[in-house]
Amino acid sequence: MHAAPPSERVAINLGDRSYDIVIGAGLLDRSDAFDGLPPGTDAVIVTNEAVGPLYAPRLSITLQRRYQRVHTITLPDGEVHKTLATLTSIFDALLEQGFDRRTTLFALGGGVVGDMAGFAAACYMRGVPYVQLPTTLLAQVDSSVGGKTAVNHPLGKNMIGVFNQPLRVMADLGTLETLPQRELVAGLAEVIKYGPIADEAFLDWIEAHLDDLLRRDADALAHAVRRSCEIKAHVVGEDERESGLRAILNFGHTFGHAIEAGLGYGEWLHGEAVGCGMVMAADLSVQLGLISNSYAERLRALIRRAGLPVVGPRLGVERYLALMRLDKKSNAGEIRFVVLEGVGRALVRPADDALVSRVIEANTR
Amino acid sequence: MHAAPPSERVAINLGDRSYDIVIGAGLLDRSDAFDGLPPGTDAVIVTNEAVGPLYAPRLSITLQRRYQRVHTITLPDGEVHKTLATLTSIFDALLEQGFDRRTTLFALGGGVVGDMAGFAAACYMRGVPYVQLPTTLLAQVDSSVGGKTAVNHPLGKNMIGVFNQPLRVMADLGTLETLPQRELVAGLAEVIKYGPIADEAFLDWIEAHLDDLLRRDADALAHAVRRSCEIKAHVVGEDERESGLRAILNFGHTFGHAIEAGLGYGEWLHGEAVGCGMVMAADLSVQLGLISNSYAERLRALIRRAGLPVVGPRLGVERYLALMRLDKKSNAGEIRFVVLEGVGRALVRPADDALVSRVIEANTR
Repeated sequence: MHAAPPSERVAINLGDRSYDIVIGAGLLDRSDAFDGLPPGTDAVIVTNEAVGPLYAPRLSITLQRRYQRVHTITLPDGEVHKTLATLTSIFDALLEQGFDRRTTLFALGGGVVGDMAGFAAACYMRGVPYVQLPTTLLAQVDSSVGGKTAVNHPLGKNMIGVFNQPLRVMADLGTLETLPQRELVAGLAEVIKYGPIADEAFLDWIEAHLDDLLRRDADALAHAVRRSCEIKAHVVGEDERESGLRAILNFGHTFGHAIEAGLGYGEWLHGEAVGCGMVMAADLSVQLGLISNSYAERLRALIRRAGLPVVGPRLGVERYLALMRLDKKSNAGEIRFVVLEGVGRALVRPADDALVSRVIEANTR
Repeated sequence: MHAAPPSERVAINLGDRSYDIVIGAGLLDRSDAFDGLPPGTDAVIVTNEAVGPLYAPRLSITLQRRYQRVHTITLPDGEVHKTLATLTSIFDALLEQGFDRRTTLFALGGGVVGDMAGFAAACYMRGVPYVQLPTTLLAQVDSSVGGKTAVNHPLGKNMIGVFNQPLRVMADLGTLETLPQRELVAGLAEVIKYGPIADEAFLDWIEAHLDDLLRRDADALAHAVRRSCEIKAHVVGEDERESGLRAILNFGHTFGHAIEAGLGYGEWLHGEAVGCGMVMAADLSVQLGLISNSYAERLRALIRRAGLPVVGPRLGVERYLALMRLDKKSNAGEIRFVVLEGVGRALVRPADDALVSRVIEANTR
């Protein structure tokens, strides 16, 4: 026996919906990491075809020590499957297997799995508890934290969903070892995001350690995940249901969602679209006179160096505008953007269509 | 101008989710009845093919005084359409029309419309507010109050849904005038329910005024709706998410749901199945030694006199048991029944399969 590898906890404070984010290597195999979850009879692992074969058997063995019955539901892989139809297949499987209200769902995978398992947990028999076990960098630093769940609609991303906080988030850093490089890079987009919107020192750190992150240095990844979760936990603790502050977490996402929807979900990874969207949102911030051109260039250089796209697809200005009008931050057809107003500070505001059109023209090819 | 007809309010106390049930004739036309709702830009009436033509134009005129845009979504009529597919059609319509987060949904119809509009409101862009405007007796006394929303699944009734409290319930007693007699009778099943589970005096009152209710005497209906809402508001205020007490509101529903699912949704109306289910649950209470045979006979006589079925369909004992095992009150395959333990008192408990089988045999044909 060797000592358990160290793990860290980040608390997310939401009154009676508070929970911990546990970060560490090897959590999937550590029964003690599951201590303190409310008692339940059955456990259902919701995973996908890519992640399931790698990790579901290990998680299943750990859960079998705690639950009478452990079952695995395997979804198809990819954003294109984040639909009401796939959600329905989860309900079908749960009912066919006779799972009752004392069942806990365990979301094992990336953001798509987490969004759908969390949504399914909210609705199955009007609510069963769930645990997030994110296995991608993007899910560990962003989507598994904060209780946003959703599926896409042909007319817009994440349009159908609910706020539903998990019982716990358990980020096993070991799962990042098998992550395809393209997905690691996509996850870095959300890591980078936290610098410009909230933490100048973290932006400096990312710039200094980007090469370490790209070669998956364990210490660098651990720091990136922890600091990202700390920032997200703070923002979500202030504004659980996105009535104000929380919207800044969508920096780059308004442009990014338009890219994803315009190309068809799955063509670009979410993080890739957000990377490019941050470049566009930074340029918009320059055009609005909020930040200097050199700061925007600094961000563009970092995003490019991470391996993320910095030029958007040529969908046409009108198509971009139409897709962005569907954004959930829109008010009566007026698109609202997360823009930067300095290093480590962001705000949400509308922008003139002409200005936005110029930004789209300048940043697409 | 004549004075506005009187209306009454029943408060439902749920902390920051508290709201009022407003009961009165002609509410749909009274703009002042909508005072105090949070400001919003747009209003969407969700109704069905039976109710919409009768009342949606009137409601629309009233709402146009308050909202920039008023749109109506008309669903097909009937329990058979309470599905994820119909729910999806609501999302499609909302997105196609470009409605944003500042939209309020108005559920105008019976329980099916209310359940689906409330569920859609919970999920559209992760939550928009909604108002219940029940137009059937059943919805006015039961389903519109308490925030339970759901759709059916082929494997069970109300299996997919959420708790989502409305901003207000507005029961316009005038809409009961156009209710088909069969639906009025079905609604009486839920009125009758409140007597045996919670209020001996109300049971006496129903027995004394059943003929008035059946001929739609306005004062009798007003009293029945108000007292039913008071009892339901009290129970829901004690136990919003059905972790205990609230389950007694399902008296007759475990057998009733089996009848509905076994025959196929829509064959019997929900209230008809509940009426028959109460007869079976009362008989089970006798078999368990909890109440006298004469009290069960008293309830059976009242239910029969209301015009509700008191004998269930011959689905077969095994089929009944299998369907009831899917009930959400079940624990690890053990069916739990709401049974009576006296006049005005109920509790939830399991029962031996052999005993339940005998009750099914004796009460089906």
